[in-house]
Amino acid sequence: MQTKSGRPAFEHEVRVSWGDCDPAKIAYTARIPWWALDAINAWWEAHLGGDGWYQMELDRNVGTPFVHMSLDFRAPITPRHRLICKVGPTRLGNSSITFRVEGWQDGTQCFEGSFVCVFIVADAFRPQPAPPDIRAVVEAQIVEVPAE
Amino acid sequence: MQTKSGRPAFEHEVRVSWGDCDPAKIAYTARIPWWALDAINAWWEAHLGGDGWYQMELDRNVGTPFVHMSLDFRAPITPRHRLICKVGPTRLGNSSITFRVEGWQDGTQCFEGSFVCVFIVADAFRPQPAPPDIRAVVEAQIVEVPAE
Amino acid sequence: MQTKSGRPAFEHEVRVSWGDCDPAKIAYTARIPWWALDAINAWWEAHLGGDGWYQMELDRNVGTPFVHMSLDFRAPITPRHRLICKVGPTRLGNSSITFRVEGWQDGTQCFEGSFVCVFIVADAFRPQPAPPDIRAVVEAQIVEVPAE
Amino acid sequence: MQTKSGRPAFEHEVRVSWGDCDPAKIAYTARIPWWALDAINAWWEAHLGGDGWYQMELDRNVGTPFVHMSLDFRAPITPRHRLICKVGPTRLGNSSITFRVEGWQDGTQCFEGSFVCVFIVADAFRPQPAPPDIRAVVEAQIVEVPAE
Repeated sequence: MQTKSGRPAFEHEVRVSWGDCDPAKIAYTARIPWWALDAINAWWEAHLGGDGWYQMELDRNVGTPFVHMSLDFRAPITPRHRLICKVGPTRLGNSSITFRVEGWQDGTQCFEGSFVCVFIVADAFRPQPAPPDIRAVVEAQIVEVPAE
Repeated sequence: MQTKSGRPAFEHEVRVSWGDCDPAKIAYTARIPWWALDAINAWWEAHLGGDGWYQMELDRNVGTPFVHMSLDFRAPITPRHRLICKVGPTRLGNSSITFRVEGWQDGTQCFEGSFVCVFIVADAFRPQPAPPDIRAVVEAQIVEVPAE
Repeated sequence: MQTKSGRPAFEHEVRVSWGDCDPAKIAYTARIPWWALDAINAWWEAHLGGDGWYQMELDRNVGTPFVHMSLDFRAPITPRHRLICKVGPTRLGNSSITFRVEGWQDGTQCFEGSFVCVFIVADAFRPQPAPPDIRAVVEAQIVEVPAE
Repeated sequence: MQTKSGRPAFEHEVRVSWGDCDPAKIAYTARIPWWALDAINAWWEAHLGGDGWYQMELDRNVGTPFVHMSLDFRAPITPRHRLICKVGPTRLGNSSITFRVEGWQDGTQCFEGSFVCVFIVADAFRPQPAPPDIRAVVEAQIVEVPAE
């Protein structure tokens, strides 16, 4: 996964732990979308001057609630390796943004997912177009989706 | 959502709490697939003589790991009402099962999702066909998916 | 655990699930304070006309942040039984409240804990005495702590 | 917090996120013991050749279940700073170990806690003395508890 200009996608590292695992000795499925969201939040922090969803909401009055998520689970996740989440935006619409997140452990792809958010005025919970400064940041970071 | 014989789908009730909500005063998105999985586990308990995933794995040596999930989020979820999760299997393949989960609060649909699991021999983490007794239970409970 | 007038303490039921368990096949420790807090929130809902922390904060402008918790873990918790959390206030100070929570499964005490909260004006995050209507409710529900 | 030989205690960094916060815009209380446990697990990983609870259980057949935890919450935790968890063992008994965890944000102590675990033979869930190799590692890392 890389940006259109050829840079590797942003990576967010997760320390998978004992408490994330179920009696099958692998990460419980419901932890995985949680980590994918952590990765998207970390992407915002890295590209918006340190601002994640918390600062976007409270300081910029911009919310980005999710309207859709879809995940494929390809291999079990365990605490034996760090989980590397590669993340980037794949599409920026007028008032929506789509992210792709891939989870990798030890060179194996464990999951991949697609996540669609819409931009809202946070204190009014009303749709809005992507704010121009955010749009500029996102457009430079669009990643290419691998052909299936 | 109802079974092919016209009975209403199984309902699992979730008590949404303060700690489930984020600063936007609504349930955090990552809680929602977690609740959907709780609802599927409760469905198994209700239809398999009290056995959820824990007993299926430890007592029956049957695992049902997820290979896919897809959710659409339609309305915010808050602690002001119980969250009613309607759940049922929509398709039983040779070695896979698909569940539909809908979340409702106060008459409004908040989310819906589709979840695909595969049957495995738990201690070998190896695919297997759906065991006959489980197949019989599931087939009687297949729900009809609403036409879109 | 019972109130001073001899009624049994309030009970909150938890459905322990596969995803709550770690590879030791018992509930992960960090889930237990979470359930204890769920039980305290449910106690407020049951005694304050349906209002838990969410409604206390948003509708009454009353917050009750925790300043202390202490738990003893006595027996493992599994999905094989519902977890019954017995909960009640043991002490109401001028501006603080102490709760006791006991977790039971199948007649065995699994944990017990003590939790101290302080009353604040929610939107100012400033201490306040317990509001009179809440004080009246709590005083009638004080439970006796078993002698050790 | 420092070891008896004067080295600073081990630090585990937590990225506090939007989803960790409740509608009061601060981390939900039940997240805090969870992070403290993450910090203890990270301490084991750092001092036991990369082995956390997962590897201790599965590869060494050593479990360390918790029998007690006690926490004081001193200041709210938010996503505006990383949460630095200082962690170290304060006491090693024959078959038990006590950890102290302090959480700091931007130079302010947010919480402190004490956690007692016992050593068990993992597959038998039976108490055992601390294994000698683990005892040697722990003894060199004992931290001094600040006088109150």
